[in-house]
Amino acid sequence: MTHVARMAMQQKQGDAMYEDYYGNLITSLAMANDKKIVLLVMDGLGDAPNATGKTPLQAAIKPNLDALAGQSACGLLVPVATAVTPGSGPGHLGLFGYDPLIYQVGRGVLSALGVEFPLEDRDVAARLNFCTIDKSGNIADRRAGRIPDEENRRVLEKIRKGLKTPAGVEVFFTTEAEHRAVLVLRENNLDDNIGDTDPQHTGVPPLKANRAPYDKSPTAAIAANIIEQVQKMLADEPKANMIVARGFAKHPAWPKFPDRYKVKPAAVAGYPMYRGVAKLVGIPVVAKPTTAQDVCAEAAKAMAEHSFVFAHFKYTDKTGEDGDYDGKVKRIEEMDKALPTLLAAKPDVLIITGDHSTPCVLKSHSWHPVPVLMKAPWLRGGQVAKFDEVNCRGGEIGTIPSRELLPLAMAHAGKLEKFGA
Amino acid sequence: MTHVARMAMQQKQGDAMYEDYYGNLITSLAMANDKKIVLLVMDGLGDAPNATGKTPLQAAIKPNLDALAGQSACGLLVPVATAVTPGSGPGHLGLFGYDPLIYQVGRGVLSALGVEFPLEDRDVAARLNFCTIDKSGNIADRRAGRIPDEENRRVLEKIRKGLKTPAGVEVFFTTEAEHRAVLVLRENNLDDNIGDTDPQHTGVPPLKANRAPYDKSPTAAIAANIIEQVQKMLADEPKANMIVARGFAKHPAWPKFPDRYKVKPAAVAGYPMYRGVAKLVGIPVVAKPTTAQDVCAEAAKAMAEHSFVFAHFKYTDKTGEDGDYDGKVKRIEEMDKALPTLLAAKPDVLIITGDHSTPCVLKSHSWHPVPVLMKAPWLRGGQVAKFDEVNCRGGEIGTIPSRELLPLAMAHAGKLEKFGA
Repeated sequence: MTHVARMAMQQKQGDAMYEDYYGNLITSLAMANDKKIVLLVMDGLGDAPNATGKTPLQAAIKPNLDALAGQSACGLLVPVATAVTPGSGPGHLGLFGYDPLIYQVGRGVLSALGVEFPLEDRDVAARLNFCTIDKSGNIADRRAGRIPDEENRRVLEKIRKGLKTPAGVEVFFTTEAEHRAVLVLRENNLDDNIGDTDPQHTGVPPLKANRAPYDKSPTAAIAANIIEQVQKMLADEPKANMIVARGFAKHPAWPKFPDRYKVKPAAVAGYPMYRGVAKLVGIPVVAKPTTAQDVCAEAAKAMAEHSFVFAHFKYTDKTGEDGDYDGKVKRIEEMDKALPTLLAAKPDVLIITGDHSTPCVLKSHSWHPVPVLMKAPWLRGGQVAKFDEVNCRGGEIGTIPSRELLPLAMAHAGKLEKFGA
Repeated sequence: MTHVARMAMQQKQGDAMYEDYYGNLITSLAMANDKKIVLLVMDGLGDAPNATGKTPLQAAIKPNLDALAGQSACGLLVPVATAVTPGSGPGHLGLFGYDPLIYQVGRGVLSALGVEFPLEDRDVAARLNFCTIDKSGNIADRRAGRIPDEENRRVLEKIRKGLKTPAGVEVFFTTEAEHRAVLVLRENNLDDNIGDTDPQHTGVPPLKANRAPYDKSPTAAIAANIIEQVQKMLADEPKANMIVARGFAKHPAWPKFPDRYKVKPAAVAGYPMYRGVAKLVGIPVVAKPTTAQDVCAEAAKAMAEHSFVFAHFKYTDKTGEDGDYDGKVKRIEEMDKALPTLLAAKPDVLIITGDHSTPCVLKSHSWHPVPVLMKAPWLRGGQVAKFDEVNCRGGEIGTIPSRELLPLAMAHAGKLEKFGA
């Protein structure tokens, strides 16, 4: 079969902005071998200088990372597109080689994965907010005074007990945190053509899930019925006396990681969100470490049985979000100290990078490209002296979209056939 | 509404080579704030070395531009695509974030905008050339001996007086220069499916505007009728005894700059062509300065009431087109001296670049990428020492398409939301 024919066989993406030409090409070339690729994601790794003129990566004492940079191809990754700040979902999808502009997932599915709800392909998930409505039915507080988690759980239990489930449909409510929860509907013939009921403003009533143009969806009628029942049940609640829903969505039918790349993958991740994104593309979770030392140890262990290991370290992002520059420096240094455990397992290709930048000066994700190093066979030389945002700019990889990184690692691991005769 | 839904709402571009995915993504993320972006275009800025081995930017004494480069992200812009030399229209559209391969505009519209004809959405415009035909009706001189502007005006006045306007259609003729003029038809139901009548050769007769496959267009019949009348009226003219028309086109229905980027824009430009391109994307013109000092002063003034200011300086291109190396050096130095006036107004993001390169050694536009500097918050450091074609190559921006520059400026100005959760 020719590459063209093989690519033509790939399924079209329903909601895609454009065809996944590059991903399909890589799939058509992928071949299995016993080489092992490790992708270590230091979440939110990229940064910008603070008043000292240095980024946390530039300020950190990190002999192992710098020595690695000197033996690696370095570069900068653009997670989504120039100037675009990625959420964690798109950031990771790019690193997994799934173009985030093609592989867009509904908010409900991300929320369900975030609370580790065992979502099935036939399920429809939505993100819920408890809110407070006044006597005329208008929303007075979109977050119901940010009720504590226990109150969220108590009210959801009340709903579970009182709800008259529509025939044949299973309904699941799961607490996320504070006023946030997840709704999942399960039945064989559900659709997700359902309106957001959250008007995103106060002083107006919630919208109907089955208003036009959603009035032709049987599932929208079921959702609207459930929400009506909930409103009656919560009428006497002081704060959480209503719910609003948004992002109704089904689990997307995307190509699974093992089929796409002919590898046996494993995820090593301590936080639910990142386990969720891994599962979304069919990477099973084998361990849930959180500290740098544990992340490296579990990643090394997972290599024994898997040819691709995604290992996630959260704290570089967390400190960035908190604007905690010294903390971020410390977390980088922790990872640096832990690295020998991972290096001792001798991955054939080792990637260290982030899913996006989280500059401490911004206290949020940002659009800045992310430094990356890839230690691998068949590099060209001329490596950079230090692993940081400025030095990586001059490295062998250059500045590329995140989605091209994993294919590059596969090439260096001998996992991609030649294209054409 | 999700990003996907918002992007789906964007109108499709009829004649585009491909969808405007990136532009629509940026529109879906754009948000208004009070930060101010200034785009100073030094037309034709990029160059190549002459015999001295230096480009005009390298030869110029420009302390302010070099100091700015040391505080800015620098890089190179590719206006249309690698190896492609842009006209002024595409060059500016790229800087405005409109992919020039998607946003292609008919020659007639560009000509009408160039003479500042107040074009309406229902109008059809065409570029006219006076030409000389021989007794058998074949074209002998495609430019009618480059008649002087006064003769152009005299002959057009003769046409205006003699023309029997087709019922309901208004017809406008406007002198451009020498043998060049603009024709505009105005009526509510016009189309632009009209053939070029210029055969682009001598020794053959002009083509018919309503030949097949244009014979189904009512507007083509009107155009053909007008040209027949003109031919009779000009029969006794010694040189300009006929007209040929090309590029019949309507004003394109493109997304307008303020809607696309959620900014309040203003243009400061002394030459009609650049005011025309600004108006084409919905940027109103607020001043018409030409000298470097006036351009900077008017741009600074426009910042008071506008969150995006496009300021245009023509003379770097003009000297390049003339092959006047010393003149281009001098024009760069003039702008350098004028810059403090603009800097004093403290734009949040200041971009200085060109719409394309105009190397003096080529005396024409060229395909060379264009140096750019962007002074902005949240830069990473490692800035370059001088503002020129070679030093910019190693800067933070790297080499990117021109159309990604404005989104990058928006990111640094806090005018773009996060993509995905």
